[in-house]
Amino acid sequence: MRRKTFAHMNCSVARALEVVGEWWSMLILREAFMGTRRFADFQRHLGIARNILSARLRKLTRQGILRRVPAPDPRAGRYEYRLTDKGRALFPVITALRQWADRWVVGMDKLPVRAIEIASGEDIAEVKVASRAGRELAPSEVALVAGPGATRATRARLAAILKARNLS
Amino acid sequence: MRRKTFAHMNCSVARALEVVGEWWSMLILREAFMGTRRFADFQRHLGIARNILSARLRKLTRQGILRRVPAPDPRAGRYEYRLTDKGRALFPVITALRQWADRWVVGMDKLPVRAIEIASGEDIAEVKVASRAGRELAPSEVALVAGPGATRATRARLAAILKARNLS
Repeated sequence: MRRKTFAHMNCSVARALEVVGEWWSMLILREAFMGTRRFADFQRHLGIARNILSARLRKLTRQGILRRVPAPDPRAGRYEYRLTDKGRALFPVITALRQWADRWVVGMDKLPVRAIEIASGEDIAEVKVASRAGRELAPSEVALVAGPGATRATRARLAAILKARNLS
Repeated sequence: MRRKTFAHMNCSVARALEVVGEWWSMLILREAFMGTRRFADFQRHLGIARNILSARLRKLTRQGILRRVPAPDPRAGRYEYRLTDKGRALFPVITALRQWADRWVVGMDKLPVRAIEIASGEDIAEVKVASRAGRELAPSEVALVAGPGATRATRARLAAILKARNLS
């Protein structure tokens, strides 16, 4: 089955998913944040088929989210995969996903893991959408407006949404 | 091809992806956050096949992320799909995804849309991982420790990671 691509959509959410939205990609990144670097370790911790792991690592590397470097100890595989700055910038995404499932899927009394600030030993805060002044914002307090790269279709769509919300 | 499930994993990231990680699900939620409620409108805005849209909406409804309610104007479809509290709680996830692609995939000079705080008209802040005191935290400043629902395997894994990071 050919899968429809999101790459042509005039939307950053779609562009993000085109890059990291495939089944397994985000769990491979979870592993990378946990310190996993070697092919065999990704495979072992995830229980993923070699061919799928290989394809996902290749894509994440091509996209500049991981970089492949020669392994310091080549007996355990020739290469290592490390997060780049672009990859590390996904930390809020993966943390928000974890916290959402903590609360809404798993339940706070059954958490597999807790994320703590090392310096204080305290649980980290919940990831929030906030104003520049630091006030938490609900979806109803946020609107989307056209950016410099909005197509005509996007502008028309955003105008219709603002009108429906009585914000135009 | 049968796809491996993540549901058995002792990990909230995996549990989140099991629920919202399928191709299209997050874009359907993006649409819901933009105010889309009707089947025909989801289909039109996303260009998604009816059978896939139908399956995704059914799953998101079964998972309590959307709820299906009778449409106020049944000429345009009998039902509407609305975000529940559990669905609205994905706002930080979807916002973090959008902002990541804004910066790292699309480029800030080519943004399709900007998210603004309605009250002030200002761009919202970037979604961050932060301590309870509000300090932004890099991945290296955060550790995972066993929660109340950690399995023995999870505890062993976390201990090994802390040891590798010299934090045990």
